[in-house]
Amino acid sequence: MSEAEKKLAIIATKGSLDWAYPPFILASTAAALGYETQIFFTFYGLQLLRKKPNLKVTSIGNPGMPMPMPMPVVLQTLPGMQGMMTAMMKKKMKSKGVASIEELREMCLEADVKMIACQMTVDLFDMKPAEFIEGIDYGGAATFFAFAGESDICLFI
Amino acid sequence: MSEAEKKLAIIATKGSLDWAYPPFILASTAAALGYETQIFFTFYGLQLLRKKPNLKVTSIGNPGMPMPMPMPVVLQTLPGMQGMMTAMMKKKMKSKGVASIEELREMCLEADVKMIACQMTVDLFDMKPAEFIEGIDYGGAATFFAFAGESDICLFI
Amino acid sequence: MSEAEKKLAIIATKGSLDWAYPPFILASTAAALGYETQIFFTFYGLQLLRKKPNLKVTSIGNPGMPMPMPMPVVLQTLPGMQGMMTAMMKKKMKSKGVASIEELREMCLEADVKMIACQMTVDLFDMKPAEFIEGIDYGGAATFFAFAGESDICLFI
Repeated sequence: MSEAEKKLAIIATKGSLDWAYPPFILASTAAALGYETQIFFTFYGLQLLRKKPNLKVTSIGNPGMPMPMPMPVVLQTLPGMQGMMTAMMKKKMKSKGVASIEELREMCLEADVKMIACQMTVDLFDMKPAEFIEGIDYGGAATFFAFAGESDICLFI
Repeated sequence: MSEAEKKLAIIATKGSLDWAYPPFILASTAAALGYETQIFFTFYGLQLLRKKPNLKVTSIGNPGMPMPMPMPVVLQTLPGMQGMMTAMMKKKMKSKGVASIEELREMCLEADVKMIACQMTVDLFDMKPAEFIEGIDYGGAATFFAFAGESDICLFI
Repeated sequence: MSEAEKKLAIIATKGSLDWAYPPFILASTAAALGYETQIFFTFYGLQLLRKKPNLKVTSIGNPGMPMPMPMPVVLQTLPGMQGMMTAMMKKKMKSKGVASIEELREMCLEADVKMIACQMTVDLFDMKPAEFIEGIDYGGAATFFAFAGESDICLFI
């Protein structure tokens, strides 16, 4: 079997800025390596499909996040901190030449990564297809299993 | 090989209300599609096997959670907020026709999803088998690998 | 195919004390069962490769964590709480005979688990190879796919 026939299936369930990178970076890398790739967006992961994602990141609850300096948790909960951390991560990514989430997502679409929005979650959170980008499909877990069951790699992110 | 012979292996490691849905929804869907399915409950995931799970959800540390209105992080830490968010999610799920965790779990058991509690974690947290539902097995990581190593899909949730 | 030829691929992305156990426990168990095993450390997971990891755990944002007694979230944010919870988990693990992260990591290396640090993340966070343990490799997502694409189990932790 040639490398080109391999398949990568991703279930993207997180909706924060930091956890938005892994699905799109892994999917675009796999697509560049010739993998047929699908991402099923469900739960909080639906946020990654919004036209204007407006994703945030926080260090709260994540003691593994590298910080420029140690900061007491109680300070991290203060108003403005989440916005500041989000701006810092975006600036950091840009300065290191990492593409933005919108750019990575566009690269995935151009590389024929199939993106499926979980219909049940869309209904659950009363989201509207008009809020999401073009070029995606809608389906349920059963739809995804048809592809995932044949995949070489399946990741729950 | 027929679809009926496919295998899904899940490692369920989270113990909050929101992350309790994916293992049970994916397992019950897979079982309905004819997959032989096992869930290995370890770390915080053991909470999902309690007779009365009493699971909670919080928006703290999860900026990806859809909120009815924006709320400063410091307000989210106030007493009563976690209880309120838990009640809201349960009400939301019910109003949309999503089964409760207890119901989804029962559906999995009726569909012959094999559930294994991680013995090491049970010992670690001094939990008692009497706290858990009937119909589950106990075992270690090695037990799980015997099934996972033969699976078509293996997910760490 | 013999059991000895099976392959386990892990993507370790978390950098807290609690989420440091699963990759090393699963990898060392798999290696003991004869699996060829690789761990790709990326994002916050790079913290697990530091010579002196100094990992922390917190109950904030994780209502699934078993607590000796219920504690309001606002108390959990107070100075000293994260340090106290970290000390408690380490003591608990030790009293139950669970090896420390450093010991589990060493067991993995001795069992020929291949560890790869994500070069992109190393550059992103301005980390230095001198901060990491000996015996690891450096590479990108493409390097990891070469192994993961041939694996029997691939987990995103």
